[in-house]
Amino acid sequence: MEIVRHAADGAFRWEGVDVREYKQEGTAPFKDVTRQVLFEAEGLPAQLRYFEVAAGGWTTLERHEHVHAVMVIRGKGQALVGDRAYDIAMHDLVSVPPMTWHQFHASPDEPLGFLCLVAAARDRPQLPHAAEVEGLTRPLKRS
Amino acid sequence: MEIVRHAADGAFRWEGVDVREYKQEGTAPFKDVTRQVLFEAEGLPAQLRYFEVAAGGWTTLERHEHVHAVMVIRGKGQALVGDRAYDIAMHDLVSVPPMTWHQFHASPDEPLGFLCLVAAARDRPQLPHAAEVEGLTRPLKRS
Repeated sequence: MEIVRHAADGAFRWEGVDVREYKQEGTAPFKDVTRQVLFEAEGLPAQLRYFEVAAGGWTTLERHEHVHAVMVIRGKGQALVGDRAYDIAMHDLVSVPPMTWHQFHASPDEPLGFLCLVAAARDRPQLPHAAEVEGLTRPLKRS
Repeated sequence: MEIVRHAADGAFRWEGVDVREYKQEGTAPFKDVTRQVLFEAEGLPAQLRYFEVAAGGWTTLERHEHVHAVMVIRGKGQALVGDRAYDIAMHDLVSVPPMTWHQFHASPDEPLGFLCLVAAARDRPQLPHAAEVEGLTRPLKRS
């Protein structure tokens, strides 16, 4: 029988939910990120995941056709979306439109945890060429 | 242009997100519930909504083919799912399977706020016959 309730442990881990690698090491640049799939179910055309970026860490700079719908539920940081960086904090919502470069950065002193809703059927991310990265990340404040 | 960031105000309201009636009054029984649609977008086959049930309030007892994927983000209460009532608190996850009677109750002394993920294309809820309600809600602790 399907488990109805997955209790939270107060530290952003859930009963019956595995903490996974964000991505396989070496497939894309990132730093100190974990991934938990909170909801995926038959009959649900979407997945809800929880990503946690350790203090000073960041997700992969990437883009894809599928959209991201993000809500911060822990800490603070910055979201780079297109040509702007947004300060983000508790419960802020971030929409990443199709084929828009994006990256999430935790603040230097605390982790950034966010929910990310995506379609269950979705395309694979594209990575920028090395030469593009500097230009794309210019809006981020460096600390 | 689409708004990328909807800032939270620290009180479970978001910039650019309307607080709506939960349902039209008189269409179904419920008490003290508001609804905010946090994400709905072209290319996203799902919606993420935030429901807030005031202290002592409850949502409609109903069932439908589509599944609910719920995360508590404020307060505590109980979730009635099928023939069981579950105590729920911060960040707990609740899955409501297809055609399963369910209802959310806030605790008597604080509101219950939860995210609810659903398919964008979904069937309408069914309500129980009046005579069925007492039996269905028996697992709930009455305070």
